[in-house]
Amino acid sequence: MKLMILKDQLNDAIQQVSKAASSRPAIPILGGIKIDVTHHGITLTASDTDISIQSFIETESDKQVNARVDKPGSVVLPAKFIVEIVKKLPADEVEIEVGDNFQTKIRSGSSDIQMVGLDPEEFPVLPSIEENESFSVPGDLLKSMIRQTSFAASTSEQTPILTGVLWNLAEEQFKFVATDRHRLASRSSHVETSSGHRFSNIVISSKTLVELSKVVPDNQSLVDIVVTDNQVLFKLGHVLFYSRLLEGIYPDTSKIIPQVFKTELVLDTKKLTDAIDRAYLMSREEKTNIVRLITLDNGMIEISSSSAELGRVTEHLDAAEFNGDPLRVAFNSKYMLDCLKVIDSEKIFIGFNGAMSPIIIRPTDHAHSLHIILPYRTTG
Amino acid sequence: MKLMILKDQLNDAIQQVSKAASSRPAIPILGGIKIDVTHHGITLTASDTDISIQSFIETESDKQVNARVDKPGSVVLPAKFIVEIVKKLPADEVEIEVGDNFQTKIRSGSSDIQMVGLDPEEFPVLPSIEENESFSVPGDLLKSMIRQTSFAASTSEQTPILTGVLWNLAEEQFKFVATDRHRLASRSSHVETSSGHRFSNIVISSKTLVELSKVVPDNQSLVDIVVTDNQVLFKLGHVLFYSRLLEGIYPDTSKIIPQVFKTELVLDTKKLTDAIDRAYLMSREEKTNIVRLITLDNGMIEISSSSAELGRVTEHLDAAEFNGDPLRVAFNSKYMLDCLKVIDSEKIFIGFNGAMSPIIIRPTDHAHSLHIILPYRTTG
Repeated sequence: MKLMILKDQLNDAIQQVSKAASSRPAIPILGGIKIDVTHHGITLTASDTDISIQSFIETESDKQVNARVDKPGSVVLPAKFIVEIVKKLPADEVEIEVGDNFQTKIRSGSSDIQMVGLDPEEFPVLPSIEENESFSVPGDLLKSMIRQTSFAASTSEQTPILTGVLWNLAEEQFKFVATDRHRLASRSSHVETSSGHRFSNIVISSKTLVELSKVVPDNQSLVDIVVTDNQVLFKLGHVLFYSRLLEGIYPDTSKIIPQVFKTELVLDTKKLTDAIDRAYLMSREEKTNIVRLITLDNGMIEISSSSAELGRVTEHLDAAEFNGDPLRVAFNSKYMLDCLKVIDSEKIFIGFNGAMSPIIIRPTDHAHSLHIILPYRTTG
Repeated sequence: MKLMILKDQLNDAIQQVSKAASSRPAIPILGGIKIDVTHHGITLTASDTDISIQSFIETESDKQVNARVDKPGSVVLPAKFIVEIVKKLPADEVEIEVGDNFQTKIRSGSSDIQMVGLDPEEFPVLPSIEENESFSVPGDLLKSMIRQTSFAASTSEQTPILTGVLWNLAEEQFKFVATDRHRLASRSSHVETSSGHRFSNIVISSKTLVELSKVVPDNQSLVDIVVTDNQVLFKLGHVLFYSRLLEGIYPDTSKIIPQVFKTELVLDTKKLTDAIDRAYLMSREEKTNIVRLITLDNGMIEISSSSAELGRVTEHLDAAEFNGDPLRVAFNSKYMLDCLKVIDSEKIFIGFNGAMSPIIIRPTDHAHSLHIILPYRTTG
């Protein structure tokens, strides 16, 4: 294998795929980036077997010569070193030459690097995916759907299925649900699909979606999504992002969402967020993050928290609407802040069914999002 | 104690002094900020006994009313909470009222905070400093002198005196030296002082200087410095920064600096930095950070590093000047990069006396800085 390639093109592709390389590989090959060179172009691949990312550099694009291939071939190079060194090479062009036993020479300007390459035959094989059923989602929409749900997934490996985000697609409605049993976030959106394209109850690791989010452009350009029995593939221009699906049965959360409420509030999202943020600072000292919400007779609500050592924060807030029974409820202020931060609506609706029942939070502008927080059982 | 104060003024002063509050206080009072209120103004103080910072807010400045004092008094409030909550208060004004047993009420807009205050009598007393001998240094100069030396101080508490930076002032020459026994950084500058003002061999904690650096403005405004037997005081406008001096005898480093060299090089600072940075990436894999420098017959120099598992980086560099004996030397590339990063000169001079003697690095533009790195003894 021998080629000359533009440093910036090589660097961009390395930065994209390196996110899938294992930082503490069980075997060295999983900490590597595979480079496959043909006269058509250069393919870079990294894989920790859960996630695989592939990026393709055409030898020529838009009349620009990106690479000059003298001899096709393949090699695997250690990601950690390659990621750092390539961007620091002194010249605009980089020559890569692979000799016997995958001994690799990288030359650029006054730099001369010899590397111990690995055998590409030992690199994990990417899943082969039939592409007859795909659908497309604008990049910015996919990013916000991930941002608005992934935080609510569990971080505990004791219930692996809850570390994922549940996806459903039916009748052009694309829906995400995440829960850690203490809170739930859901987000749905209309997407255009070919007639009848659907899947149900696939679960993708929340961490993987956060990684995916970093390579998805924050604009309207479309991301193609292909779902199979055990894999999902995201196609973003020259980048392919593969992820394994999580195995297991995701709990049915549809039944815990109440449809009627004993107490209904509409509040200004920013004012509520700021008030709870201040109460959170006090509740944090007690490690519990407990904040109380009480409806007052004058149509206002009171948010408060206290710490035996430190003192007490009390906040008063006008309710834009207040219907139903008076209420005293306590909840984890960190969970409430997490959900308030991702709600893109000036006002929010909160529905309660007494101090022991799930709290429902919804934007008032639209019905795409729904959040649930379980209250704390407290005395007094 | 009772007063109304502008939130932004209070917040600025809290952020300045809070750096001196202990984050893990041995006794609660050391994690507090003392607030002293008189009709003249509000003084905030934090102290972990090594460092103390004080900030003063005048009740009126430039015809702006900053505070309205109803009742003078004092209280100590926990820094960690105060630092976070004050900047998040909802209104522009903050009312603070202290009642019996230092119970403190803070009100701002719809927020009502009760806090358990502490007795100001228990707060550490600041050193009393006679101010008859002070001198002044522009803020930006003081910041760069700290930046150009503090990194070379030891981080090991085994030799506490070496965790400090040595200061000398004589004949209007102000000089900093830091060393961890493997490398040394020194920086001197002309400063204007009253006739004969001098001190010798005072040592200030490197960590303290880095903290000081954060509150020193990056411009020509003067910082007044007062040195006593066991304290140093920095006056920055309304902020006073006190630090204890380190106790002990700082080693005499003047004798280890050679005046003649067997090999002298002048190199482009940026090209050398970039070459060593690439070699460092490979040397890092071996944990030793060893990089080799060899003079070649053609007047060039070769920088190289190798890792048994990963490979080898070789760099070639033109020497702007090269006098004396051929040389092979090995050194810690991290130490060399630390010193190259703070040298503000396009070209640098490096002087050697063989593979086992200290390496001297100096800017070519001026004689204010000098760096020493001890070489590694390596085979081959």
